[in-house]
Amino acid sequence: MDATQQNEPTTKTAHGYIKAKDKEQVQNRLRRIEGQVRGVQRMVDEEAYCIDVLTQIASVVSALEKVGTILLKDHVEHCVRESIEKNEDADVKIEELTAAVERFLKV
Amino acid sequence: MDATQQNEPTTKTAHGYIKAKDKEQVQNRLRRIEGQVRGVQRMVDEEAYCIDVLTQIASVVSALEKVGTILLKDHVEHCVRESIEKNEDADVKIEELTAAVERFLKV
Amino acid sequence: MDATQQNEPTTKTAHGYIKAKDKEQVQNRLRRIEGQVRGVQRMVDEEAYCIDVLTQIASVVSALEKVGTILLKDHVEHCVRESIEKNEDADVKIEELTAAVERFLKV
Amino acid sequence: MDATQQNEPTTKTAHGYIKAKDKEQVQNRLRRIEGQVRGVQRMVDEEAYCIDVLTQIASVVSALEKVGTILLKDHVEHCVRESIEKNEDADVKIEELTAAVERFLKV
Repeated sequence: MDATQQNEPTTKTAHGYIKAKDKEQVQNRLRRIEGQVRGVQRMVDEEAYCIDVLTQIASVVSALEKVGTILLKDHVEHCVRESIEKNEDADVKIEELTAAVERFLKV
Repeated sequence: MDATQQNEPTTKTAHGYIKAKDKEQVQNRLRRIEGQVRGVQRMVDEEAYCIDVLTQIASVVSALEKVGTILLKDHVEHCVRESIEKNEDADVKIEELTAAVERFLKV
Repeated sequence: MDATQQNEPTTKTAHGYIKAKDKEQVQNRLRRIEGQVRGVQRMVDEEAYCIDVLTQIASVVSALEKVGTILLKDHVEHCVRESIEKNEDADVKIEELTAAVERFLKV
Repeated sequence: MDATQQNEPTTKTAHGYIKAKDKEQVQNRLRRIEGQVRGVQRMVDEEAYCIDVLTQIASVVSALEKVGTILLKDHVEHCVRESIEKNEDADVKIEELTAAVERFLKV
């Protein structure tokens, strides 16, 4: 994101699970979401009508959940699929996947 | 938010519905949410493990919904209450309120 | 619901908050929901395709949330409104209302 | 799942995707949910306090979502896994799975 970060020799594990096409799309969506959050800050600052702020927040929530499902799909298509194909940790991956969905549904 | 904005002769309707204490709190929460969204961008950029990104997104969603309920409460305490006390547009306000909750629940 | 229940000298607090028109509508919806739940049991019994069962469950969830928002609206229109008009326990009612919304959003 | 079922002139597609253990558990949960829905009908009938009805409805919603995630997990463990292992319709199964999650999140 900032210069330091891009230059540092990254030791982060790059999972490469996100399809290039989706990565671009996901980043665009996240940038728009960031802008929306700043928009909400502005609305609160200017004391916009509460119902309008709530509508905007509900819209950001939906946008985030949409990103979540895109990533989820890529994850299944890549990680879960691969783990099943190679028969490596498939149970763990499936468990993780369901747990992630549960966290979204707050079950 | 920025200097220009604060100095300009505002024509915006300031509803003053947010309690000063809550406004501060809401803005802090929104700034933290903005930071979290940037964090998610970074995670996607560095291809962090998908499940971790999803967990983070679910956490941002919860944080936004929490802000939503704080604003909702202030709205009921201020706008809805006042409209009922003055018997001005109470029906409209109640209708709006329920509609806002429905948008959140996506009913 | 059954004869016994209707004849017994009720000691239950009848809040009378639900508008007659809505009560009928809510009961119809709840009966339909009960039928849907039995339908899901049947699907599971007959091992219907999992995705179809999930779709049906998601539909029951939406139907329940719809009932929730109808009751919520009646509650605001009746109890919350009255408590504000009479200036009796208005704060408690508003607090309760927000807490109920939070439980729905699982915030 | 069992022999009888496979031999009877069923026109129902028996997918056998639900693990026996889970099927029992899911049916128990669904019966409890059906009872809860009838309980809500009774509460509405007796005009129980609205907030209590809402709390009960929110609890039924959570119970249904829990059943949803159990079925989802079984589905991934069985159908999705098998389709990937046999390389049959894996893309379709994954697409279906994500669509099911989206319907739950109402994205």
